[in-house]
Amino acid sequence: MEFTAKQIAELIQGTVEGNPEEPIRGVSKIEEGQPGTLSFLANPKYTHYIYTTGASAVIVNNSFVADQPVNATLIRVSDAYRAIAALLEMYEQSQPQKSGIEQPSYIHSSASVGEFAYVGAFAYIGENVIIGKNVKIYPQAYVGDNVTIGDHTTLYSGVKVYKQCRIGNNCIIHAGAVIGSDGFGFAPDESGQYKKIAQVGNVVIEDNVEIGANTTIDRATMGSTIVRKGAKLDNLIQVAHNVEIGEDCVFAAQAGIAGSTKIGNRCMFGGQVGLAGHITIADEVKLAAQSGIASSIKQQGAVYMGAPGYDVAQYNRSYVIFRKLPEIYKQLNALEKKVSQL
Amino acid sequence: MEFTAKQIAELIQGTVEGNPEEPIRGVSKIEEGQPGTLSFLANPKYTHYIYTTGASAVIVNNSFVADQPVNATLIRVSDAYRAIAALLEMYEQSQPQKSGIEQPSYIHSSASVGEFAYVGAFAYIGENVIIGKNVKIYPQAYVGDNVTIGDHTTLYSGVKVYKQCRIGNNCIIHAGAVIGSDGFGFAPDESGQYKKIAQVGNVVIEDNVEIGANTTIDRATMGSTIVRKGAKLDNLIQVAHNVEIGEDCVFAAQAGIAGSTKIGNRCMFGGQVGLAGHITIADEVKLAAQSGIASSIKQQGAVYMGAPGYDVAQYNRSYVIFRKLPEIYKQLNALEKKVSQL
Amino acid sequence: MEFTAKQIAELIQGTVEGNPEEPIRGVSKIEEGQPGTLSFLANPKYTHYIYTTGASAVIVNNSFVADQPVNATLIRVSDAYRAIAALLEMYEQSQPQKSGIEQPSYIHSSASVGEFAYVGAFAYIGENVIIGKNVKIYPQAYVGDNVTIGDHTTLYSGVKVYKQCRIGNNCIIHAGAVIGSDGFGFAPDESGQYKKIAQVGNVVIEDNVEIGANTTIDRATMGSTIVRKGAKLDNLIQVAHNVEIGEDCVFAAQAGIAGSTKIGNRCMFGGQVGLAGHITIADEVKLAAQSGIASSIKQQGAVYMGAPGYDVAQYNRSYVIFRKLPEIYKQLNALEKKVSQL
Repeated sequence: MEFTAKQIAELIQGTVEGNPEEPIRGVSKIEEGQPGTLSFLANPKYTHYIYTTGASAVIVNNSFVADQPVNATLIRVSDAYRAIAALLEMYEQSQPQKSGIEQPSYIHSSASVGEFAYVGAFAYIGENVIIGKNVKIYPQAYVGDNVTIGDHTTLYSGVKVYKQCRIGNNCIIHAGAVIGSDGFGFAPDESGQYKKIAQVGNVVIEDNVEIGANTTIDRATMGSTIVRKGAKLDNLIQVAHNVEIGEDCVFAAQAGIAGSTKIGNRCMFGGQVGLAGHITIADEVKLAAQSGIASSIKQQGAVYMGAPGYDVAQYNRSYVIFRKLPEIYKQLNALEKKVSQL
Repeated sequence: MEFTAKQIAELIQGTVEGNPEEPIRGVSKIEEGQPGTLSFLANPKYTHYIYTTGASAVIVNNSFVADQPVNATLIRVSDAYRAIAALLEMYEQSQPQKSGIEQPSYIHSSASVGEFAYVGAFAYIGENVIIGKNVKIYPQAYVGDNVTIGDHTTLYSGVKVYKQCRIGNNCIIHAGAVIGSDGFGFAPDESGQYKKIAQVGNVVIEDNVEIGANTTIDRATMGSTIVRKGAKLDNLIQVAHNVEIGEDCVFAAQAGIAGSTKIGNRCMFGGQVGLAGHITIADEVKLAAQSGIASSIKQQGAVYMGAPGYDVAQYNRSYVIFRKLPEIYKQLNALEKKVSQL
Repeated sequence: MEFTAKQIAELIQGTVEGNPEEPIRGVSKIEEGQPGTLSFLANPKYTHYIYTTGASAVIVNNSFVADQPVNATLIRVSDAYRAIAALLEMYEQSQPQKSGIEQPSYIHSSASVGEFAYVGAFAYIGENVIIGKNVKIYPQAYVGDNVTIGDHTTLYSGVKVYKQCRIGNNCIIHAGAVIGSDGFGFAPDESGQYKKIAQVGNVVIEDNVEIGANTTIDRATMGSTIVRKGAKLDNLIQVAHNVEIGEDCVFAAQAGIAGSTKIGNRCMFGGQVGLAGHITIADEVKLAAQSGIASSIKQQGAVYMGAPGYDVAQYNRSYVIFRKLPEIYKQLNALEKKVSQL
């Protein structure tokens, strides 16, 4: 397929600056732009590439002002990132979509699968499972007994959903993610050996949630571990039993949240953060990568860093001094010596 | 099923305070208690909920003293946590259990599977595998050649056990865990390229071990990587080649242990801790979450924190001062100025 | 099979010191050496074991000088680690190799599988897949549409490769690894809800790469996420979209690399390190375990530690003072008091 810059501009309500007939046959990143491709500039860190990119056309924000000559044809839009997102979405939608039931697969006779579903080979759908319409269950995925899955949801290859869990509409769960494994609950007996606490709850994932590859979400001891609508979890994240994750939260990879912790709406966590159990995090809290949060955060919109974490600006001020500690210690000792000689 | 408070009290050797005929049809968390359900109070952080919970009955410790009126019927026991654990266990045992061989599954003709086993569809059992009685191998689990698995052990969906590994009795291994992948061993050649060191050992998991979802345990270069009896490993933990984990250890999610490290009995590690390779950890050592342990810990029962980690109390004292560093630095500079003016 | 010490010495160009007819029937670690087995001494930390090991023969470096009597027969070589590696490799090669197509497996009619392949039961090979010769696809592995896999590559059980990814020759990918899951890309709309950015790129893994168990490598938004030839990634590592990992890099378990970061050749990262997105790391950079790298590292061969990380020697100097902070603070306050009394 080939488009002109003008045709693309029309798709995204943009205006062309340069050759409207510039032919476009693919997309590329601005720093690797090839002739015949379309690129975009949204992150200011990449601005300098626009003067050297080989891409034939570049989507830029209306606010972009060139301070050197630009070879590429520009397509100006109000939000370059959204515009490229819209184009990528159109491209993705134009790709062939999986459908039908591949064999061999295992669908229990008591299960119901909605219309237009894809069930890949070696997928397993247990007793009394209810699956909505237009759902994609990729090969080797496992859907345990009594699970329900809403409409338009995709489980990629090898996703494992334990019995009784509930997954909403329009969710995407990536390969290898595990939903509903037992919470980590043990009680020591008199001899110091640990006895398992049966985990009889489940996991509830609301609508429009995306769960990354190999992320694990444990079932509740009682009640439900909950991921609320619109939350996005990256890869290799650990969500322990009875955790609740608020709406539209965004957590980067390898974050870990210990048991029974409740997280507000629209929180953003960097990679590898850790949260203790039984704490509460207010709405819109941001945590810098690798932060360790040991107690509740009550202030909406707080930004924390460090382990144990606290206000990011304060943390950074301390860290600047930490780096100077050897010279500060010398300064102190020199001062002490001077005073002793007074 | 419906029980009365009195019937439940009899199951757990408790005494009823309130209405012995209170009907109970389910369980709930105290903070989310619903009429007709039974809850429990074990963690003192949750004590205040007992005055407002909607649960009809609550299991409490004999030592609990109410300082406000309580609506719920109380069931007093010597240990509320163990009592609820016992009830949840009874509930779990009353649920239908999987059994039989689902088709299609792959059981090599040379493998032996004990009586009362469950082998789910798409499970794979390789050559010369020996599986004990009452074992559950969930769908899409993989048991490599020459593996042995003891009695009453459960491998959930998608567990992967490489060839030659040995798993004991009464173990539970959660979905996606990988047992026996190659240790990470490479030797650089003259050109700086890394050549793989063949990993010809195995993994030995003793009795009563629980392994979390997507946890990985590498096989030994030679000999065995060992997880001793009663140890409990949470999700997404990395155990490298030739590590030994002592009896009744409890490790929280995302911990990582580098090669050949030996860990004593009854150690407790918080989430995301990391241990260097080739070190030894004494019995009953506790590590705070996110600690990084670079050298051996010889003192039994030591509690460490930080990265590199050391005594937790000392670490915390230093961290308190770390937070004050900007003002301390000002204090030092002011003092220096004052001295220079003397 | 049984060998004499002399026969083994000939295999690895070594010289025997002791009984050349010593019979060897297996290998063991020096600290656990059993009679009839061969061990080796390469790591100086283990030198003391050579005087007490039960192993009948030990491979040592030519440079080894005993300062006590040694019971074992020694086999001296120029590099003990390489010698044992060569022996383990010979042992591994002598083991039976998997081959043939097990049933049931799923190979799309449009896919091509090269000669001498192993395709395990329940493995899935999608449309237009091209698989080279002597490839091993273990049970329950998934190879999505249009994937290409080079010669002599092994995918262990449960590996998931999403559509369009490319994997080179002589690669080893361990169980549960996920290659090509969607990058974590979302754009907030006016209401604060996140809209998915379609991820239309792929993952390219070059030759001689090893990927650990349950490691996840996301596909690029556009273009490719790249792991260059010879790189070795341990278990549970996260590689985000559009990352590039240079040749012969070696990353320990649980490392995480955020989106679009470019890493040079021959870098070595310790366990649990985290790297921010959109940064560049020079060749041969070393990162201590748990380091957090927030900005680009331009100096080739730099060694960093800390979070945010900087020069390891400087970090360690500051950390030594950090541990003394309580007493330093006392010292400052005492000095201040003394000055005020002057």
